[in-house]
Amino acid sequence: MNSYSSKLVETAVNELSRLPGIGKKTALRLALYLLKKDPPFAHGLGNAIIKMRNDVQFCRECHNISDSEVCEICASEKRLKNTICIVEDIRDVMAIENTGQYSGLYHILGGIISPMDGIGPNDLNIDSLIQRVAGGRITEVIMALSTTIEGDTTNFYIYKKLKNHNIRITTIARGIAIGDELEYADEVTLGRSILNRTLYESSLTR
Amino acid sequence: MNSYSSKLVETAVNELSRLPGIGKKTALRLALYLLKKDPPFAHGLGNAIIKMRNDVQFCRECHNISDSEVCEICASEKRLKNTICIVEDIRDVMAIENTGQYSGLYHILGGIISPMDGIGPNDLNIDSLIQRVAGGRITEVIMALSTTIEGDTTNFYIYKKLKNHNIRITTIARGIAIGDELEYADEVTLGRSILNRTLYESSLTR
Repeated sequence: MNSYSSKLVETAVNELSRLPGIGKKTALRLALYLLKKDPPFAHGLGNAIIKMRNDVQFCRECHNISDSEVCEICASEKRLKNTICIVEDIRDVMAIENTGQYSGLYHILGGIISPMDGIGPNDLNIDSLIQRVAGGRITEVIMALSTTIEGDTTNFYIYKKLKNHNIRITTIARGIAIGDELEYADEVTLGRSILNRTLYESSLTR
Repeated sequence: MNSYSSKLVETAVNELSRLPGIGKKTALRLALYLLKKDPPFAHGLGNAIIKMRNDVQFCRECHNISDSEVCEICASEKRLKNTICIVEDIRDVMAIENTGQYSGLYHILGGIISPMDGIGPNDLNIDSLIQRVAGGRITEVIMALSTTIEGDTTNFYIYKKLKNHNIRITTIARGIAIGDELEYADEVTLGRSILNRTLYESSLTR
């Protein structure tokens, strides 16, 4: 006999344990939890997963997840259509949206250039970005990628591709996080935050 | 707009985050992972969950999970039919099976008596255990529950229910775990392990 007493449970455990961060033990715990709950619980979960994978679309403009061909942000009349913020993935869009400080459009790269992981510029949504900028409506592109070597490489690659267009290319501010104590900040960040100091009056508005 | 840009993703995240140990952030990470993978990946997971919940049965003898009316252990001709090992849940069956040291039958209680969690004797598979013993074929019942107050309470409850039947009622040995150092063992365990000392010769067989 297999150690799960049931092929059905074994299959479910195997499928669950293919998810990132979920090992065999956790998968078994989840499977037994699903068996303890009423059937609609498992049906709801299973169907939500299948339906999401079948029906979710990616915005043809910015590649954000969407229930329609163009996402709610790109379709919204309230958003500034001349500014694009470049981010790595959808979670970054949510993080920036939660700040309530940005009202332009986005462009989701779907990753960053990382030769170690075999991800090159052609694996990312860079061509479509250049096309959007070439469209002529865009006046500013904000690069909001991670402050890592991969992020810097990607920033530089995009900068080279866009610099001949007549647009502002900016990057989000690097500096001491609000609430942080100077003595624990790393030297590079602290050094940069001195070089890129801002007028006190403008810091008051945040 | 909702912060997920997609109702479908939001639904999937909500469903995933109802699982134990999975919060909203992890659920979102899993949902985005499913979106990155090819559709068959999500279909396989969703269908495995639904199929498991629909088709898994619980053995009418021992309440183990099973793909048929009687589980493979109860149906097997190789197992000793006169011994029942009482466990809390299915994971304990797997743990004991993995030792390869037990060849009798099981009885899965489906929990332990825990007034704090509102679980009383009537919520557990105790009546069916008594019926199995009353059937007359059983000569030994081994209690293999957790060494907690709840486990002890449940052991005692079952003991009272079964003591008038002509069977041996045993409990798995408590003592110093193999590989453990005495100096770190708790006093109660160490004290019991001295009281319940075994003949050196019999310990050699393990």
